[in-house]
Amino acid sequence: MKAVQFYFDFTSPYSYIASRRIDEIAQRHGRAVEWHPILLGAVFKITGMKPLLDMPMMGDYTRNDIARSAREHHIPLRMPSEFPVSTVTAARAVCWAKENAPDAVNALVHGLFTAYFEQDKNISALEAVREVAHSAGIDPESVSNGVQDPQIKAALKDAVDHAIALNIFGAPWVIVDGESFWGNDRLHLVDKWLETGGW
Amino acid sequence: MKAVQFYFDFTSPYSYIASRRIDEIAQRHGRAVEWHPILLGAVFKITGMKPLLDMPMMGDYTRNDIARSAREHHIPLRMPSEFPVSTVTAARAVCWAKENAPDAVNALVHGLFTAYFEQDKNISALEAVREVAHSAGIDPESVSNGVQDPQIKAALKDAVDHAIALNIFGAPWVIVDGESFWGNDRLHLVDKWLETGGW
Repeated sequence: MKAVQFYFDFTSPYSYIASRRIDEIAQRHGRAVEWHPILLGAVFKITGMKPLLDMPMMGDYTRNDIARSAREHHIPLRMPSEFPVSTVTAARAVCWAKENAPDAVNALVHGLFTAYFEQDKNISALEAVREVAHSAGIDPESVSNGVQDPQIKAALKDAVDHAIALNIFGAPWVIVDGESFWGNDRLHLVDKWLETGGW
Repeated sequence: MKAVQFYFDFTSPYSYIASRRIDEIAQRHGRAVEWHPILLGAVFKITGMKPLLDMPMMGDYTRNDIARSAREHHIPLRMPSEFPVSTVTAARAVCWAKENAPDAVNALVHGLFTAYFEQDKNISALEAVREVAHSAGIDPESVSNGVQDPQIKAALKDAVDHAIALNIFGAPWVIVDGESFWGNDRLHLVDKWLETGGW
């Protein structure tokens, strides 16, 4: 059975909420989750979209909807003091881990989201990424070297380009057997799609 | 108990889908639905947003998501040959009916949505609006005069301005006791909010 493909940006609150729900949904149907960190900034350059929180009139609604969505699913969420932040280093760390410490990827992804959206740690800083890596059982020095490695930098760039080529224009974004679902608010459909094979 | 406030544009497919679901949700909690036709074009001028179908990369995803959302709720939907269309006349007809034929408003709203999204009738034309009004038990001549009446034109303009003042930036948009929900994909939360009073 093909893994559920989960595309996300670490600075996206809806990606965080969805990241806390997707493991259970996938497991229920005997599927693994493949994590794909992307950079929404690069995607928005093409679509012309802006983060919802930056759109006229939309900020207040979106702040309330994020908090309400987290409470709906009983997921702790504290909006970070620094928001949004650059997620290049965190995303590169995941790219490095996918090649060099695949068993730790899940813990690294969840750890980075926890650091940012629960513990208010600014994960744009290498030091914060190193701490989370350590907790995930990864040698911090290897990660520090990894995120500077030209091959890893190229791997992330390729991953973002590939996502754009797949017409992924937002996050979180889930692909199940070729079918795309955009947004935390589509996860119940991901569940239903895995259950039924589509409708 | 205050009515559930439902804001929509007749040319919005997600508004159509939500219009087919909101009556039952409101009734389950002993509430009425108050219909508020608005003009998304006027709203988008302020937010700088464009219809999702016009955004780069988003068209194919959105077309598929609209059809999938309709099938999810077993709602017949045929994308109209002319899309989008001006909904000024249809919206004015509803404004007229709210003042002059309040008992027919529900049938008029559903009839206009049916004409456009099931029967592929171009409801930007007065003739199509007259036909639906007639089926809803409204005298077509009265509607023809109503949609030309300066007072009705002003009433729609005021309604749109009022919606913008409430920070309504999309459709469908539902307000329950002061809490806002944007999108057909938030209707399960409208249901839950009516049930629980919030969380």
